[in-house]
Amino acid sequence: MSSIKTIVISGGTHGNELTGIKLFEKWSSHKECYADRCPSASIALVHTNIEASKICRRYADIDLNRSFSNKLLALNAPNAYEIRRAQELNQKYGPKGPQTKTDLIIDVHNTEANMGLCLILSTRDPFTMRASAELVCEFSTAHIYYQPEERGESPYFGTIAKADICLEVGPQNHGTIRADLFEQTEKIVIRYLELAEEWNRGVLQQKPKKKVSVFTQYKDIDYPRDPQKNILAMIHQNIQGKDYLEVKPGMPMFRTFDGKDVPYSGERSVWPIFIHEGSYYEKHIAMSLTLKTEEEW
Amino acid sequence: MSSIKTIVISGGTHGNELTGIKLFEKWSSHKECYADRCPSASIALVHTNIEASKICRRYADIDLNRSFSNKLLALNAPNAYEIRRAQELNQKYGPKGPQTKTDLIIDVHNTEANMGLCLILSTRDPFTMRASAELVCEFSTAHIYYQPEERGESPYFGTIAKADICLEVGPQNHGTIRADLFEQTEKIVIRYLELAEEWNRGVLQQKPKKKVSVFTQYKDIDYPRDPQKNILAMIHQNIQGKDYLEVKPGMPMFRTFDGKDVPYSGERSVWPIFIHEGSYYEKHIAMSLTLKTEEEW
Repeated sequence: MSSIKTIVISGGTHGNELTGIKLFEKWSSHKECYADRCPSASIALVHTNIEASKICRRYADIDLNRSFSNKLLALNAPNAYEIRRAQELNQKYGPKGPQTKTDLIIDVHNTEANMGLCLILSTRDPFTMRASAELVCEFSTAHIYYQPEERGESPYFGTIAKADICLEVGPQNHGTIRADLFEQTEKIVIRYLELAEEWNRGVLQQKPKKKVSVFTQYKDIDYPRDPQKNILAMIHQNIQGKDYLEVKPGMPMFRTFDGKDVPYSGERSVWPIFIHEGSYYEKHIAMSLTLKTEEEW
Repeated sequence: MSSIKTIVISGGTHGNELTGIKLFEKWSSHKECYADRCPSASIALVHTNIEASKICRRYADIDLNRSFSNKLLALNAPNAYEIRRAQELNQKYGPKGPQTKTDLIIDVHNTEANMGLCLILSTRDPFTMRASAELVCEFSTAHIYYQPEERGESPYFGTIAKADICLEVGPQNHGTIRADLFEQTEKIVIRYLELAEEWNRGVLQQKPKKKVSVFTQYKDIDYPRDPQKNILAMIHQNIQGKDYLEVKPGMPMFRTFDGKDVPYSGERSVWPIFIHEGSYYEKHIAMSLTLKTEEEW
């Protein structure tokens, strides 16, 4: 991206993830919190899933952050609230594709997993890579997760912009708000804005690249289940809360209710994240496995 | 209580607190897990709120564990599922009062607060005091919370028995299940059964009393709120996750969204528990304050 003219900062894409919602509420009535951080771009604040927020649930009908594929965006007169809302947001801030009105979306999420500030990149965009590399050096709990997406098929809100950061902040129980994480989130979003300003002035491009750990999407794994889909085992206590740490083949991954270890049966080391995210039980994801590399970004 | 002839072990009084539900499921099909631990009593396993468990929510209509007051138990043809279920349970395992069929209820709950194994006593019953004192010495994360209840008015399931332990296990996000906490819970419930057996044989009464810390209910406090009931501040990061630790007058208790500390304005030290329990937002409880004493139990 050569320059960043339009930025959307969004919260409440899931209605029970309160950090983004509270940030939206605070900044909506206190523009001085962010307005002068990137004067070279226009900044819009968006409360994404308003109906789900009213009932403090992840979604009202279906997951809004799985509703932005070209296929769903083209659906005629959809019933589900979230598909209607996705089409509305796409019309206002998209449309998804090269003609989009939005250069950058920063979509603030929460996770119950112990992931700190997880900076999720869906594309190898030069600005989001460079800025995120700066920020993992500034914030001790920040990590980069690279989850490559084919933008047309991708169901995520961020993909209606040219580039996006999905900021996953945890551990925070859904429907609650933690002070420490709120303050870290506000700081890092402000830093993204300041770095966008540096980018637009050509300053960030001149800074030396940083060597960073990049956790790249590998595959999701489910809990062991019986034929009726009941879970047969829990996340093993050795990896509960240990997001981003290496799991080698043969190391315990699950624990059955009668106290038996279920080892990781893969053939190579993995670095799990989203370990024990509560809202992923229904998606049949116990954790997302990543591969860790060291890169110059 | 001179001897314990009938014991109810229950889980799922809140349908999204999975430890008790999974314990119920495991033990229902594996009686050998518990049957010989207290042969002098008859033991019933109860899955308390079945409808709420199906939808993995705290309750279907109203909170079951606020439905056991004499007033609600006497209600004629109630609509709410939970009041009907409370009346059914009271008929089967009560009736509440001196004629109850149940000597002891151990009701397994979860909390999102960092409370470890919290042993809640609603009455100064000699067995539950003696056994709980033994167990806080055996389990490093166990604590005693004394929440005196007038049994007729009390809305809690346990109060339909002569004595009860409400076992609050955390931190565990609602709708999820942690391996370490499941195993600790199973162990401590088994130990209660073994100690009931010792009690029935007159052995436990002969053991020397233990000096234990007792956290006694003092008062619940709410978040600072605006006139529309929106929260104006979060649990302060200094006390987030610090259940059972002393808060002195003037120490920060909440943190506003613009980063200001809100101090504890009481006149004496308190020891908060249930700090930041997510399901208590709707009950307007940010935490429960207790007073700590050292006692011989």
